[in-house]
Amino acid sequence: MRKRVVAALGHRALGTTFPEQQTALRSTAKILADLVENGAQLIITHSNAPQVGMIHTAMNEFAKFHDTYGAPMSVCSAMSQGYIGYDIQNALRSELLRRGIYRTVVTVLTQVTVDPYDETFYHPVKVIGRYLNADEAAAEERKGNYVVEEPGKGFRRIVAAPKPLDIVEIDAINTLAQAGHIVIAGGGGGIPVLKQGSSLKGAGAVIEKDLLSGRLADLTNADMLMILTDEEFVSIGYRTEAPTPLQHITPAEAMRHIANNEFGRNKMLPKVEASVNFVMQKEGRTAIITSIDKALDAYLGKTGTVIENVQ
Amino acid sequence: MRKRVVAALGHRALGTTFPEQQTALRSTAKILADLVENGAQLIITHSNAPQVGMIHTAMNEFAKFHDTYGAPMSVCSAMSQGYIGYDIQNALRSELLRRGIYRTVVTVLTQVTVDPYDETFYHPVKVIGRYLNADEAAAEERKGNYVVEEPGKGFRRIVAAPKPLDIVEIDAINTLAQAGHIVIAGGGGGIPVLKQGSSLKGAGAVIEKDLLSGRLADLTNADMLMILTDEEFVSIGYRTEAPTPLQHITPAEAMRHIANNEFGRNKMLPKVEASVNFVMQKEGRTAIITSIDKALDAYLGKTGTVIENVQ
Repeated sequence: MRKRVVAALGHRALGTTFPEQQTALRSTAKILADLVENGAQLIITHSNAPQVGMIHTAMNEFAKFHDTYGAPMSVCSAMSQGYIGYDIQNALRSELLRRGIYRTVVTVLTQVTVDPYDETFYHPVKVIGRYLNADEAAAEERKGNYVVEEPGKGFRRIVAAPKPLDIVEIDAINTLAQAGHIVIAGGGGGIPVLKQGSSLKGAGAVIEKDLLSGRLADLTNADMLMILTDEEFVSIGYRTEAPTPLQHITPAEAMRHIANNEFGRNKMLPKVEASVNFVMQKEGRTAIITSIDKALDAYLGKTGTVIENVQ
Repeated sequence: MRKRVVAALGHRALGTTFPEQQTALRSTAKILADLVENGAQLIITHSNAPQVGMIHTAMNEFAKFHDTYGAPMSVCSAMSQGYIGYDIQNALRSELLRRGIYRTVVTVLTQVTVDPYDETFYHPVKVIGRYLNADEAAAEERKGNYVVEEPGKGFRRIVAAPKPLDIVEIDAINTLAQAGHIVIAGGGGGIPVLKQGSSLKGAGAVIEKDLLSGRLADLTNADMLMILTDEEFVSIGYRTEAPTPLQHITPAEAMRHIANNEFGRNKMLPKVEASVNFVMQKEGRTAIITSIDKALDAYLGKTGTVIENVQ
């Protein structure tokens, strides 16, 4: 009996530039193939911050130079899912074939609904794209976009990071997973969309990929969520000189640590929140946060921060 | 019993710029929804020429300006599938919901293998991207790319248009179609890839979307291939003052017209070839080439150039 595992890949697994991504994914594919060989039925999701930033900047500098239309953030997100999915699926497909495993690896373009009244729309925090000068920053603000100044460096555009609600293509993702295909979905946290009557409208936002990975694991009824990052353990007291790594914790313990502000807002906090959300929905679920290099050991129960609802 | 229909959308269905595409797709979605309401189980494929050209130019001008890596053609193709699939699936989803039909519309990133010895690699013909000046053209040639001069206008990069062989994600596409989802696949003719051992390597090429649509219809065992373009009929004697529109023809008749050089090389020829390839593989198949505005009438047997293997 295969164990359904949602694996969330972060920047370490992907790199930044075109050649970096290909190199990083050769290692990542070996790790993912180890999981498959050990009985995992994988659904893969991934971040996209440098990639979507590059696409957004390229498309909008092109538009300015040629006096044509710029690409909305949602379109850039769709493009980044195509680009990154293409590289992940090929790296993993090759690695599996080298091990004699034939399995379709397929990327599904994924939209995720967000709430137009999500409070983060009033407090955007996610930085995107390159540094802007004062004129460019003013032009962004005239278009209704938010910018933030980084003293001495320039301005950056910032967008909201609303919470993920529904995954629009979830039925298709489940159909593929149930048929035994390896699915790549929800890249970059999904393309954020707002429901407007019967339509979906792209939102000028970015969804935190960790939060989406928890939602994806829940809605695909996964047995395990693995958030693969660059540290073997989540630690409390991370700002102190002697942080304490967490091994097995319950959702209740995790929530107490969250309340005590023990986790970095843009780093471990969303990972722990996603894990808690996932394991709380149903008994018997396991969430693991660990370093990508330790993925197999963690999958086999040997390391990583494990969040389980143990009675 | 639903009829499985592969619908191939061309430039008329999509437009060129971001806002044009959204407007064009509102009309296109109505036409596709009419087919669904009349019993078609749709698999949709589409062209991507202006879109991939825009992405290719934007990514490579960005790379030049910021002295970083350019995007290979295959990556640009993957991005265009994300971008166009996103807009098609949303336009169709909305139109179906307005008619009270709930169906998942899902875009599958699609790679298509090509033969490294395909003769077209030695005779590239597909123009991509913007006009280049002489220096830029020379730089492209130094990189091993082909360029062609259009006197008085400048240079354009040209790439090969090899024949499609296998669709790498075909099992996933069939799984989704069999489960009743509406699938968008093979956009822009698919991302062209070369098999190298257990790996797939992106090819600096573009696959003719009409040829791919025939292959997709064959490999999904469709009942009908509809190539939706801007003319109601394919005509013979198209260069004369009184071309003769073709209504019902057999593959044998179509092949005779092909041999007589009756069809425009970059316009109707690949559409007729794709249709012949599709209907010849199995009895009972129908291929229709018609104007997108006439799609429903053609589907109901009232118009269009119909290619059928009638005994």
